[in-house]
Amino acid sequence: MSAEHTGGHVPATEETPIRVMVWNEGVHEKVDAHVAALYPDGMHGAIAEGLRGLIPGAEVRTATLDTDEDHGLTDEVLDATDVLLWWGHVAHERVSDVVVERIKRRVLSGMGLLVLHSGHFSKIFIELMGTTCSLAWRNDGEQERVWTIDPAHPIAHGVQHPIVIDQQEMYGERFDIPTPDELVFISSFSGGEVFRSGVTFRRGHGKVFYFSPGDQDYPVFHHPEIRRVLANAVRWAVPADGTRLPGVTNPARGWFDR
Amino acid sequence: MSAEHTGGHVPATEETPIRVMVWNEGVHEKVDAHVAALYPDGMHGAIAEGLRGLIPGAEVRTATLDTDEDHGLTDEVLDATDVLLWWGHVAHERVSDVVVERIKRRVLSGMGLLVLHSGHFSKIFIELMGTTCSLAWRNDGEQERVWTIDPAHPIAHGVQHPIVIDQQEMYGERFDIPTPDELVFISSFSGGEVFRSGVTFRRGHGKVFYFSPGDQDYPVFHHPEIRRVLANAVRWAVPADGTRLPGVTNPARGWFDR
Amino acid sequence: MSAEHTGGHVPATEETPIRVMVWNEGVHEKVDAHVAALYPDGMHGAIAEGLRGLIPGAEVRTATLDTDEDHGLTDEVLDATDVLLWWGHVAHERVSDVVVERIKRRVLSGMGLLVLHSGHFSKIFIELMGTTCSLAWRNDGEQERVWTIDPAHPIAHGVQHPIVIDQQEMYGERFDIPTPDELVFISSFSGGEVFRSGVTFRRGHGKVFYFSPGDQDYPVFHHPEIRRVLANAVRWAVPADGTRLPGVTNPARGWFDR
Amino acid sequence: MSAEHTGGHVPATEETPIRVMVWNEGVHEKVDAHVAALYPDGMHGAIAEGLRGLIPGAEVRTATLDTDEDHGLTDEVLDATDVLLWWGHVAHERVSDVVVERIKRRVLSGMGLLVLHSGHFSKIFIELMGTTCSLAWRNDGEQERVWTIDPAHPIAHGVQHPIVIDQQEMYGERFDIPTPDELVFISSFSGGEVFRSGVTFRRGHGKVFYFSPGDQDYPVFHHPEIRRVLANAVRWAVPADGTRLPGVTNPARGWFDR
Repeated sequence: MSAEHTGGHVPATEETPIRVMVWNEGVHEKVDAHVAALYPDGMHGAIAEGLRGLIPGAEVRTATLDTDEDHGLTDEVLDATDVLLWWGHVAHERVSDVVVERIKRRVLSGMGLLVLHSGHFSKIFIELMGTTCSLAWRNDGEQERVWTIDPAHPIAHGVQHPIVIDQQEMYGERFDIPTPDELVFISSFSGGEVFRSGVTFRRGHGKVFYFSPGDQDYPVFHHPEIRRVLANAVRWAVPADGTRLPGVTNPARGWFDR
Repeated sequence: MSAEHTGGHVPATEETPIRVMVWNEGVHEKVDAHVAALYPDGMHGAIAEGLRGLIPGAEVRTATLDTDEDHGLTDEVLDATDVLLWWGHVAHERVSDVVVERIKRRVLSGMGLLVLHSGHFSKIFIELMGTTCSLAWRNDGEQERVWTIDPAHPIAHGVQHPIVIDQQEMYGERFDIPTPDELVFISSFSGGEVFRSGVTFRRGHGKVFYFSPGDQDYPVFHHPEIRRVLANAVRWAVPADGTRLPGVTNPARGWFDR
Repeated sequence: MSAEHTGGHVPATEETPIRVMVWNEGVHEKVDAHVAALYPDGMHGAIAEGLRGLIPGAEVRTATLDTDEDHGLTDEVLDATDVLLWWGHVAHERVSDVVVERIKRRVLSGMGLLVLHSGHFSKIFIELMGTTCSLAWRNDGEQERVWTIDPAHPIAHGVQHPIVIDQQEMYGERFDIPTPDELVFISSFSGGEVFRSGVTFRRGHGKVFYFSPGDQDYPVFHHPEIRRVLANAVRWAVPADGTRLPGVTNPARGWFDR
Repeated sequence: MSAEHTGGHVPATEETPIRVMVWNEGVHEKVDAHVAALYPDGMHGAIAEGLRGLIPGAEVRTATLDTDEDHGLTDEVLDATDVLLWWGHVAHERVSDVVVERIKRRVLSGMGLLVLHSGHFSKIFIELMGTTCSLAWRNDGEQERVWTIDPAHPIAHGVQHPIVIDQQEMYGERFDIPTPDELVFISSFSGGEVFRSGVTFRRGHGKVFYFSPGDQDYPVFHHPEIRRVLANAVRWAVPADGTRLPGVTNPARGWFDR
């Protein structure tokens, strides 16, 4: 009642499937044979495959920077999206500002958003966080161990403690983000650094999950436990209650008491 | 070590005074005789007077939208500012984007920021929050009671429970902000609404306090308890440790172990 | 792996119903004709009726202080309980310490717990919080308005904003609890006070929700919106993943890397 | 107004020194020559020495399990204590329940409490947390690195990032504590585990800081950076505003509006 309803969005219900859009800039796969070999269908393809296997009935689509109009993220597409996954790295600046504002508005209206790895520097994540989102990094193929801090959280449901990733880029603290609403995972690396690798934020009516594993140089999105986390996070991020953008109201005195 | 240092900033120490800038758009005072009568020196003047009385030795300056260059918020001024207070309402859009980015960078580097009342819709607050910052409102001269929720918080130090403001504009939930780091005050109004009226956020190295009392139509900034809250918040928001912008680092393996 | 499993507990699944125990001391209903008239089946009866109507298939049982053995809260009963609701007021001290420790152990193992109204002073709530849980109160039949602060939270799903309760006992701040994990509702009262009326806490693997509406002198548990909140909270508090008590482990170096 | 005042407590002011009590069970130093060699004046002696050096003017006292009456923690002593530090390990059960309740009451009234290392299993910590406080451990002399997560927090003021401790007992997640109010430090260990090693909690009017470095087998309390953290934490935990136990009030309607 205290907010306008957005256009054509019809939420997922118990009867309707979860509608997921996996977005990946898709640049590394085109220019780097090593990445193309790891991800012949793109990282988006591997992520989507994982979600389809773990969320029966989900409608999982993918798009990349070069997908037709608006990087594949038109109003029509977002109207039919419950949860958006975002992977970007070298092409953050090539993402249209109009599309970023559109996504932001959708998230504030209730659409779930999962931001992966180098997406910490995406326009949409920085806009939603309000901070620099900077961190320490070192690409040295170190072992990453993802420790569950919040075992009762639905995103950690059934997940190994720790998840062991044989090789990953190191991301280390201090990670310049606002205090997360929930701290689900902390990672350590062979080199000794630590990182808040799984964190949630509520923004408007939308749920945001940042998850750091997933560098393009390693087969992280083929890892069954990483896939489980992403599937759990998709289920968690689905808007429960339709979507609407928070808005200003100017109620008359006593309006609620009639 | 993991961040660049900003230029000429020298932080306040126990030996040096707190340097405060009270910024007010200063429009209502010029166009509305009622406001001019309540605040002959501007709302900024009343706020600054309160701070000077309660923080002996503080260097308190003021500026408005029309102050010389950059609304009075040049690099030189911000270099010499520990805490910035912000009041805006009808002129949010007239504030230069360059100045907003400059302030944001300073806050992330450690400068304290106090956002007052209708400043919830200022560019700087929306940028730091990442949400719409919308709320419910009604300007009906209702009594506001500001209840302390966190009595051990330094911002609540010595403050009456509740602060009673005879007449104020109502601001009501739902207030679309991220989950605050700390909830210091909750207000109720004669008409029955409630509002999280005193909330803190850490952004980068900077402390942000939003405080909702302070509509231009009422003498709120002459209220001794409101002045006490603002003085407490200024002391709380001073950067403890110099200022620096969080930045990316790329350390060699084992760097810390030498 | 890092915790012992508790005995006979079999968690609810999508195929098995949610198993709820509504516990009420049941004293007012016996000694006060006014309360007996409002709640001919006890407050527990009214609460259970609401849950049965809103959660089809739920197995809802009730017990009171005088129920057979251990106030009806034997190991066998708790083994078969996913979520426990607790209402107490004048008989807190008559609840067996052995039963309180048993409940605490179950909550830390994952059982959900909903503490209602004057249950803020129950032994189990004080033990889980670690604080005095004191508050301000006044039983003057004031209107209470329960405002949703976290509209995307599952406990607020479909709930009116605000819920208006015509007559209730006033509970006011400062409520001496730890900082809640989530602040779902804030109430205001005709007399002007405010109260954090719906708050969540994670303790061990268990979810705890405190909800303040529900004084014995008023028909609050017949209110359809209050019933909706309780049903939402029951669904939210069900352990997702079986139950186990957090325990100490002493792993060998490199245990996770084999 | 909403609380009773406790007896003879006179808070520290800018003019009066901080009054610190360092409590250590003091058992290892008596029975283990290795510990006695590391800590000829006891761990309490080393901790006190560090505080005296870093907080000029502080009144730092020490006591142990065998100190005269009540382990040295009489009402008179606690009346004159702003911040209590607690180290215990093998003798938790030998601490008097009466003394534990006295400390708890003081903390809820505003006294600061710093709980160190194996104090996670002390009666007072468990009572204030409400959880099992269990964790993973391995005493293998591993390197610990204490990473700052909240660089603007006063407890992290001037602290190296990371603090490197050459040898320490490993403490690992999952640490069964309530969600901390603030996460200041996370540690990693040579063996790969991580731990939330510096966390704050508000309980009543008191500030609680748990800090995990400090096993008796290693000279951790001689480490200058560990001493800096403890000194920062003592300053942070001093009650700002006198001490009082939160209590119940029953105000008349309109009491605040006169």
